Amino acid sequence: MTRAIPNTPDRVAVARAHRADIRAGRHDRVTTGMAPGVVQANICIVPADWAAEFLRFCQVNPKPCPLIGMTEPGDPRFPMLGDDIDIRSDVPRYRVFRDGVEVEEETDIKHLWRDDLVAFAMGCSYSFEEALQDAGLRVRHLDNGTKTTVYVTDIACTPAGRFRGPLVVSMRPFMPKDAIRAVQVTSRFPSVHGAPVHFGDPTQIGIADFDKPYSGPKPDMRAGEVPVFWACGVTPQLVVEHARPPLCITHKPGHMLLTDRLNAEFSVL
Amino acid sequence: MTRAIPNTPDRVAVARAHRADIRAGRHDRVTTGMAPGVVQANICIVPADWAAEFLRFCQVNPKPCPLIGMTEPGDPRFPMLGDDIDIRSDVPRYRVFRDGVEVEEETDIKHLWRDDLVAFAMGCSYSFEEALQDAGLRVRHLDNGTKTTVYVTDIACTPAGRFRGPLVVSMRPFMPKDAIRAVQVTSRFPSVHGAPVHFGDPTQIGIADFDKPYSGPKPDMRAGEVPVFWACGVTPQLVVEHARPPLCITHKPGHMLLTDRLNAEFSVL
Repeated sequence: MTRAIPNTPDRVAVARAHRADIRAGRHDRVTTGMAPGVVQANICIVPADWAAEFLRFCQVNPKPCPLIGMTEPGDPRFPMLGDDIDIRSDVPRYRVFRDGVEVEEETDIKHLWRDDLVAFAMGCSYSFEEALQDAGLRVRHLDNGTKTTVYVTDIACTPAGRFRGPLVVSMRPFMPKDAIRAVQVTSRFPSVHGAPVHFGDPTQIGIADFDKPYSGPKPDMRAGEVPVFWACGVTPQLVVEHARPPLCITHKPGHMLLTDRLNAEFSVL
Repeated sequence: MTRAIPNTPDRVAVARAHRADIRAGRHDRVTTGMAPGVVQANICIVPADWAAEFLRFCQVNPKPCPLIGMTEPGDPRFPMLGDDIDIRSDVPRYRVFRDGVEVEEETDIKHLWRDDLVAFAMGCSYSFEEALQDAGLRVRHLDNGTKTTVYVTDIACTPAGRFRGPLVVSMRPFMPKDAIRAVQVTSRFPSVHGAPVHFGDPTQIGIADFDKPYSGPKPDMRAGEVPVFWACGVTPQLVVEHARPPLCITHKPGHMLLTDRLNAEFSVL
């Protein structure tokens, strides 16, 4: 897992170049591994009359919904995440939900934009996975070239208005010694899900069938490893689907917004 | 587990008063819970011609042997740990080893003192247990009023000269969520053993019979809890016994040196 990480100005230049490609429709695939060192964000867009409640939901559920930015109503720019971001075109793939049902997938949402839409950006596990690798740990699903294994737990998020639902978690296997190190490393990144929420026995958090994840591949556990569970950015998507706002637009999982912010900026220590 | 912790100057005053009692022979029992907020230290005293190797052993094994002070040869004072400390009288109970065999227990070692003796002070789990309690976690053996459960592992310490031996660990049971918090809390205290070295399956670190600890009570595990293992200050005692220096004097486990240093001083964050 060697990664060539350019120096700071270059990293942001790389992110901007990729974002230009995405905006122009030249890249509509997953953003995994693109622009190392740079924060990639989960996106959720709702009408203004749902935005206050969604903001409150993020506030009271910071582990699954670590808010790193939001837009002014109707304004597609994201100045706190990058000078030139246009949230209507800068995500490779969008999912469009109407009344909680996915109705289409888009690579650009200019035709759907309204002057009451508010976009929320949340930190993503790509950032802490980079930190884990930088600490010398192996992240199994990256080694395997697969997506993360994701489960729905029986831990209830704190409700806020019409938003409520279960905590969704991603799982990564580690030897206990490495799991301890992973707790230390990810604790430094509260804005990208932070420390794990659980390890070990999956049934303790309501995962009845460990071999049947909600999404991603079957767990690939090796001898002596324990599963370690982190709060996952899929949580708000489930919550929004359940709340059924008339319109909601999210990124397609894995197809994230590349920002101009560095992962290192979000380390608290 | 309520503890009334006095303000800083008072805490040190409390430690000094207890130390005066210990020095005068008025207290020769364990120091558990005495002088909250103040560092208690493991002590190991060896002749000068063994001291360089022991220092090196501590240096390469900082988790079991977190050195917080050492004396000049023959000088019984410990200025970096307290103005008035006399290492010949200020520990409630000493164990005296000759050629690696315990030959006596003392409450004062003035009659054994020599001008080539060097005393080493190492951080103690009392400090991190206080931090765990301050973080709202329950420490089972403190709730039970018992000693810590201690095991000998098959993890070899890094040898230094004549000093070598297995890592000794102390075990505390936690629910996984609290174990994650315990990793965070104890990571802040590298000078008092720091983060755990293992959790979960005891056989992975060579503990064949979990119900038969090396010392302390049988483990008291509740439903859903996992055992969490920290490097333990008993490690150097085993190592010294094995190396068989002609003379070695240690504190008796639980009968620690009270210092003038605050636990909070040893937090790295």
